[in-house]
Amino acid sequence: MLPAQVRMLAFDIKANTPVIVLEVGKDRIVPIWIGVAEARAIAMALAGLKPVRPMSHDLMKEIVDGLDAKLERVVITGIREDIYYALLHINQQDRTIVVDARPSDSIALALRTSSPIFVSKDTPIVEETEKNKLFIELKNRLRAIRPEDIA
Amino acid sequence: MLPAQVRMLAFDIKANTPVIVLEVGKDRIVPIWIGVAEARAIAMALAGLKPVRPMSHDLMKEIVDGLDAKLERVVITGIREDIYYALLHINQQDRTIVVDARPSDSIALALRTSSPIFVSKDTPIVEETEKNKLFIELKNRLRAIRPEDIA
Repeated sequence: MLPAQVRMLAFDIKANTPVIVLEVGKDRIVPIWIGVAEARAIAMALAGLKPVRPMSHDLMKEIVDGLDAKLERVVITGIREDIYYALLHINQQDRTIVVDARPSDSIALALRTSSPIFVSKDTPIVEETEKNKLFIELKNRLRAIRPEDIA
Repeated sequence: MLPAQVRMLAFDIKANTPVIVLEVGKDRIVPIWIGVAEARAIAMALAGLKPVRPMSHDLMKEIVDGLDAKLERVVITGIREDIYYALLHINQQDRTIVVDARPSDSIALALRTSSPIFVSKDTPIVEETEKNKLFIELKNRLRAIRPEDIA
């Protein structure tokens, strides 16, 4: 398992969908294609904006807090047939529950609870070198989004 | 507090936004204007569709279940400055926590947990009589949506 950080939100002009880009150490990224609503939920957190009324992931945080639980970590566990998978590890007193989730929901929640994000070794990692065709393709397809612009 | 049922999802052609219509007894309704993403989450549940991957409200349900808690009821508590408010009453062992939420999230969750929905007496209720101008206006503005069509 590798610790990951959110590097940026982007828009894939070929797939016509938002992408959340994680970075795993230096010059290594994990792009994850996500939905528009989840991109907005992530953008709200990245932009540090508090909505007037709790949005779905704010509510999710309030439920976890209210039940005296804590999101210990999020793990992006891999990809199968173009779908990325993640697990939420939630502590409650002396036990931990593990809940299957989409990476987008997981990251939207982790950003609200300041919980760490990890990437399992089964997740495809893209090396950012000019020799890597996949990286060059991503560079051509992805356009960074300012979180403030879609939040 | 009055027990309420979901009567239908509709689209307000004037406000250009989805509406969830609750009914409170015979010929009395509570229309609540909601967002598109939440309308879709409600439609999934009304249509009885299970997504391939958990959507945000499916995840919310899994978190509540996993933490050995139960959504006892949802209460639509009223409206202030055109914004509807709701509370989730969640049981965990011998205590109940109450969480502030939007009605749309509350209803999307309640439909997944088969939890009852209530409407407080402070919530505006529309009498469905042809003498009621508000009801006539609603009839002209709202178009029923088949949940399958937006789920």
